[in-house]
Amino acid sequence: MSHIKLLPPKGFKAGGIHCGIKRHKKDLALVYSEVPATAAGVFTTNYVQAAPVKLTKNAITNGSIQAIIINSGNANAVTGKQGDHDALEMARATANALCIDITKVAVASTGSIGKPLPTKSVIEGIEKLSPKIKPSSFLDAAEAIRTTDTTTKGISRKTTLDNKEITITAIAKGAGMIHPNMATMLCFICTDLAINKKLLHQVLTNSVNKSFNRITVDGCTSTNDMVLALANGEAKNQLIEKPCDQLDKVQKEFDYVTQSLAKMIVKDGEGATKLVQIKVTGANTKDDAKAIAFNIANSPLLKSSFYGETLNWGRIISAAGSSGIKIDPECINIYLEDILLLSCGQPVQFSATDIEHILKQEEIHFKIELNQGKAQSSVWTCDLSPKYIKINM
Amino acid sequence: MSHIKLLPPKGFKAGGIHCGIKRHKKDLALVYSEVPATAAGVFTTNYVQAAPVKLTKNAITNGSIQAIIINSGNANAVTGKQGDHDALEMARATANALCIDITKVAVASTGSIGKPLPTKSVIEGIEKLSPKIKPSSFLDAAEAIRTTDTTTKGISRKTTLDNKEITITAIAKGAGMIHPNMATMLCFICTDLAINKKLLHQVLTNSVNKSFNRITVDGCTSTNDMVLALANGEAKNQLIEKPCDQLDKVQKEFDYVTQSLAKMIVKDGEGATKLVQIKVTGANTKDDAKAIAFNIANSPLLKSSFYGETLNWGRIISAAGSSGIKIDPECINIYLEDILLLSCGQPVQFSATDIEHILKQEEIHFKIELNQGKAQSSVWTCDLSPKYIKINM
Repeated sequence: MSHIKLLPPKGFKAGGIHCGIKRHKKDLALVYSEVPATAAGVFTTNYVQAAPVKLTKNAITNGSIQAIIINSGNANAVTGKQGDHDALEMARATANALCIDITKVAVASTGSIGKPLPTKSVIEGIEKLSPKIKPSSFLDAAEAIRTTDTTTKGISRKTTLDNKEITITAIAKGAGMIHPNMATMLCFICTDLAINKKLLHQVLTNSVNKSFNRITVDGCTSTNDMVLALANGEAKNQLIEKPCDQLDKVQKEFDYVTQSLAKMIVKDGEGATKLVQIKVTGANTKDDAKAIAFNIANSPLLKSSFYGETLNWGRIISAAGSSGIKIDPECINIYLEDILLLSCGQPVQFSATDIEHILKQEEIHFKIELNQGKAQSSVWTCDLSPKYIKINM
Repeated sequence: MSHIKLLPPKGFKAGGIHCGIKRHKKDLALVYSEVPATAAGVFTTNYVQAAPVKLTKNAITNGSIQAIIINSGNANAVTGKQGDHDALEMARATANALCIDITKVAVASTGSIGKPLPTKSVIEGIEKLSPKIKPSSFLDAAEAIRTTDTTTKGISRKTTLDNKEITITAIAKGAGMIHPNMATMLCFICTDLAINKKLLHQVLTNSVNKSFNRITVDGCTSTNDMVLALANGEAKNQLIEKPCDQLDKVQKEFDYVTQSLAKMIVKDGEGATKLVQIKVTGANTKDDAKAIAFNIANSPLLKSSFYGETLNWGRIISAAGSSGIKIDPECINIYLEDILLLSCGQPVQFSATDIEHILKQEEIHFKIELNQGKAQSSVWTCDLSPKYIKINM
């Protein structure tokens, strides 16, 4: 059982059931706003995009959104014209069941690629699920979007703007195939905040760049990823339509929500036993820092040693040097937590017992100081265990 | 026991012994030409370069080479000034033992990063090994450069130029950390061919681009890699000093040698049980084709499914779409051997039994037709098994 508690933003309902794509587990989720919500989305950059991604991109571009229908167990990706048709049928069935306009329905799918969607089961599921949704059922929705996830991922935050209580509740899934640009992950953020579309998009993009685009499980990028934000205005705060203190406050809340979910996703990486932060400082540009951090974070050699709880700073500096970004090895310091391992490119004496103790922790932090410039970036990764292979073989 | 047979090019001797870096196995190799040989080298592009890499780059730039001294078990990388000193001591001891000029000695090391070289043992080893080298001992040298390699890698070829018999004998090592730009691999090519320095460099570079730069085990790039070619002219063919038929013939022989060794290296990838070719055709440029092929070849998701002998073309097309190179999924065909899996982006019916049979083979070929342009590229990869993690944890 999950221990997360998800609070309903005003005017939102949700739910999740088993419709028959998976054998037993919940596989169909619905999120609904009683009034059309301002919507923003960030999508996979893979050139191969699943049918629901194309449909939802259009829907978000064209107007407000009132419902998101999500199935797990089947990605409806690389399914050709039939896939486009099936995604549209999911939208149509949802619109009919909820008596809303079909253009206001977003669709998301996650699971295996290249298998036709069992559309009949999904549509029957939509008809069954729609009357059952309620404000208190976000957790069911969060459960229903899981694939190889071993935990249910969601978070709620409350804040106050103009003396109005604002609630943000987000659910997410993602386990393998996580990489910057949001591989095999879905995230749906619902809030009763009043904000215009342009600023909602800006807040969402900023947050995604600081969270879901900073995590990696296996360096793979999928066909189905999306992060959607719906803001229905039911909290009745004054509409945010230009940069202001309220906007900054909203950004902080969104950052908190997305970063928390991003860490939950890496921690639950397929087969992962550890969460590892790679922070690169002193780079010439933020992009350089990020490229080096990801080159380290994606090294299977290093990820294997995280699993083995052995220290191998040689693999860190080797990965730092092979990203394509020029570094000077003789300027580099490497830290594990606050223990200096390498100073100006030279090995340092340290206590093996201290190191051993840290490497056994569930969460580990490495810092790589390049001492070239002033930019920095950090990313989260996990270890590579035999279980990852077992899950994906 | 190894079944390879290595023939000595005229005027070359070699040998390999245990000097004490590893517990029991051979860890010191020497290759020697009775006359100074024309030399060319290709080196790691990692910005973190081991001391012997820096020394050998200089030696090759400055003139001819008469000896290569190689230790395994310790990379002498990220070892600071002491490392530079130790590499120089290896060259000095070799020069002294063989009565040759120190500038004519190349040094190579492979093994763990960041540990000081046990220089005393190495130097005593050099003194012990130097009198023992002989034309028939290339296999001992090939054994002594192994680290996590489970097989000894070497090849010999004979050809005729100007009615003179030419011999090319090459030895190589490499198991994990193999990636384009030659990660954790060493290769030494010895030939009695007469060729000038410029053309030897050209032939070597061309060959490396078609072989060692087309393989991947884990996408990591190391600090120590080098491929050296020594040509001592003792076959007494007419010196090759401009493009000619003889040069083309030499190129073909070098390509054969390096491609054979490259395949041996991937086949022996850490924990690997399968050799997999990823061929991408119909790209706009060769670089595009190579980038897409490597993005597929490096996917841990896909490599896990190779290990599991399961077909997952969804992961192939997903990896093809996420390399950053624009592709049109609706134009893509994917083949496993001669079986069409995906036609114009649509799944095709095929015999599950045939596929199952192919996936059990030790060598598998995938072809991805992009149908955009005319360029193509193929790379070799291996599967990802739990043993890879066990070796590196």
